[in-house]
Amino acid sequence: MTLRHPLDGGAVERFRHLLEPALREAVSALHPWGAKMAAFAMGWSDVDGRPQGGDGGKGLRPAIAMLSAEAVGAPARSALPGAVAVELVHVFSLVHDDIIDNDERRRHRDALWKAYGVGPALLAGDGLLALAVSRLAGQPEASRYLSRALVELVQGQMADMVNENRPWRGTDRVGAAEYAEMAAGKTGALLAASAATGVVLGGAPELGERMWAAGRDLGVAFQIADDILGIWGEPQITGKPVHSDLQREKKTLPVLAALDAGNTAARELSAVLAAGITDEQAARHAAELVEAAGGRAAARSAADRYLARALEVIDDCLPDAAELRALCKSLVNRVT
Amino acid sequence: MTLRHPLDGGAVERFRHLLEPALREAVSALHPWGAKMAAFAMGWSDVDGRPQGGDGGKGLRPAIAMLSAEAVGAPARSALPGAVAVELVHVFSLVHDDIIDNDERRRHRDALWKAYGVGPALLAGDGLLALAVSRLAGQPEASRYLSRALVELVQGQMADMVNENRPWRGTDRVGAAEYAEMAAGKTGALLAASAATGVVLGGAPELGERMWAAGRDLGVAFQIADDILGIWGEPQITGKPVHSDLQREKKTLPVLAALDAGNTAARELSAVLAAGITDEQAARHAAELVEAAGGRAAARSAADRYLARALEVIDDCLPDAAELRALCKSLVNRVT
Repeated sequence: MTLRHPLDGGAVERFRHLLEPALREAVSALHPWGAKMAAFAMGWSDVDGRPQGGDGGKGLRPAIAMLSAEAVGAPARSALPGAVAVELVHVFSLVHDDIIDNDERRRHRDALWKAYGVGPALLAGDGLLALAVSRLAGQPEASRYLSRALVELVQGQMADMVNENRPWRGTDRVGAAEYAEMAAGKTGALLAASAATGVVLGGAPELGERMWAAGRDLGVAFQIADDILGIWGEPQITGKPVHSDLQREKKTLPVLAALDAGNTAARELSAVLAAGITDEQAARHAAELVEAAGGRAAARSAADRYLARALEVIDDCLPDAAELRALCKSLVNRVT
Repeated sequence: MTLRHPLDGGAVERFRHLLEPALREAVSALHPWGAKMAAFAMGWSDVDGRPQGGDGGKGLRPAIAMLSAEAVGAPARSALPGAVAVELVHVFSLVHDDIIDNDERRRHRDALWKAYGVGPALLAGDGLLALAVSRLAGQPEASRYLSRALVELVQGQMADMVNENRPWRGTDRVGAAEYAEMAAGKTGALLAASAATGVVLGGAPELGERMWAAGRDLGVAFQIADDILGIWGEPQITGKPVHSDLQREKKTLPVLAALDAGNTAARELSAVLAAGITDEQAARHAAELVEAAGGRAAARSAADRYLARALEVIDDCLPDAAELRALCKSLVNRVT
């Protein structure tokens, strides 16, 4: 998923001087052409390779890894290989996602495939993934979390793709539990790997599994928040057309929860969805019905529950992790 | 690259009962839809998921891994995680290559993207790669060779793609050394990882680097043999249209060597290539000129040199590796 709103940037800013040189060094190991594409995908340069500041990646996942390491008493730097790996995987997944979804825009610029072609972008994505894996190859414990995340990430993306073609109603509809499983893969797995590799590389491997679980829950909360922004967020902020998720029949939690409400608005929504959302007016009407049926509130409260569960585990594992805690909360409590 | 001609199947056949169940078990960890696509890509089933025997993968890279383990006195089974990983990476690379090259056919069937769509195939490829990495994640030494291979594989593929758009003549032409570097990445890296993980998992990590180098040389020899088949091979056997490499302006060694020959045929070839190969007749004429200029013989002898260098290292590292030796030779001495 994409981060659609600026965050409380404290930790992210604090780690930028560590992270960016390490990412640049990693990417420099690619073929020059691949490095150029990677620099564009990272937001470091424009399509011709000219340096460009601005709307690059947010470094959220690396911040989780480095804050987790700090919270077990290690320097942030100890988690740097993990931080670099998760950020590379994140960018890899965005590059491939944009090809898969045929999305032409990313971070207010052309998507990588739009700028360089599908084949080159596909290959650049593969290169980023290869670099990510090589960062941790010598560290079995961290490596295991990273590769588990890769497998679960692909599972979640496949589930998401399959769900788009499933019906809104009937026995084959997508249930809330299935939604959560999909989100835990698509969005949670890499956050889980960030948190788990952070404590592992920080010298506390015994906390790995619990931090993995916390990261997964955080991811579900994050995805739900993103779903809410995908329907009601400001396009200028999200960088996506308004209601795009609705027009695509994405099985997002607000809509699934609305349909399950059993009230008048739910029934009307069901009819609207059955007729198909073919234009912006139908999408706006559907969004109103989702809200009236209680889908937005239900999704908001589900996000809060997942976040609370994640924070409970984090508090228990890492009593001195105020910054990590604040970062997790800011992720889920973006402007909705 | 693709194996275009049946091999001496001894070792490959001998290991099939070990390899195939392990591959099937690995692939079963994917989302059911991903597992279905993977089974198609592996040649185990048709596009609807019905079991199908026949022209599946040849298991060449796994055989190299397991023969290498046996040659250091370990059971073949000890190299199985490496064997599974390299085969998964191989299939991943074919799946993505077919998307990149817009190739509609693979192993006499539809390419995966043609059968299931670009997005799903791309994601299935990512899934295979993720599974490969997870097979070795707990084994740092083997993992390092695998991830090195992934990075070099992507480098080689990028170089190959860039080379297609470079001129045949002039200062920016592709030299023989550059060709070898490209082939060492595109084809050699995964053979190198096969050989190196084989000895590492077989308990002889001290041989890893030398077996890596032997695998890389073997890959260059293999790629040159494939280039020769790509121009003069029988389409019924190779499964590719005749002269397809020539029509695509691929910078293959026979052509590069012919252009460097400096004789009359070389000059004529240069003119033909400058005019552009737009039809089958021009391609046939170019192929004749490559042969007349000595490009085919030069490529053949380069393949023999790389093979000899690989075998020398193998003989030195693994004195009792008759089967591995035979397999390597059969790879390069396919019907040319």
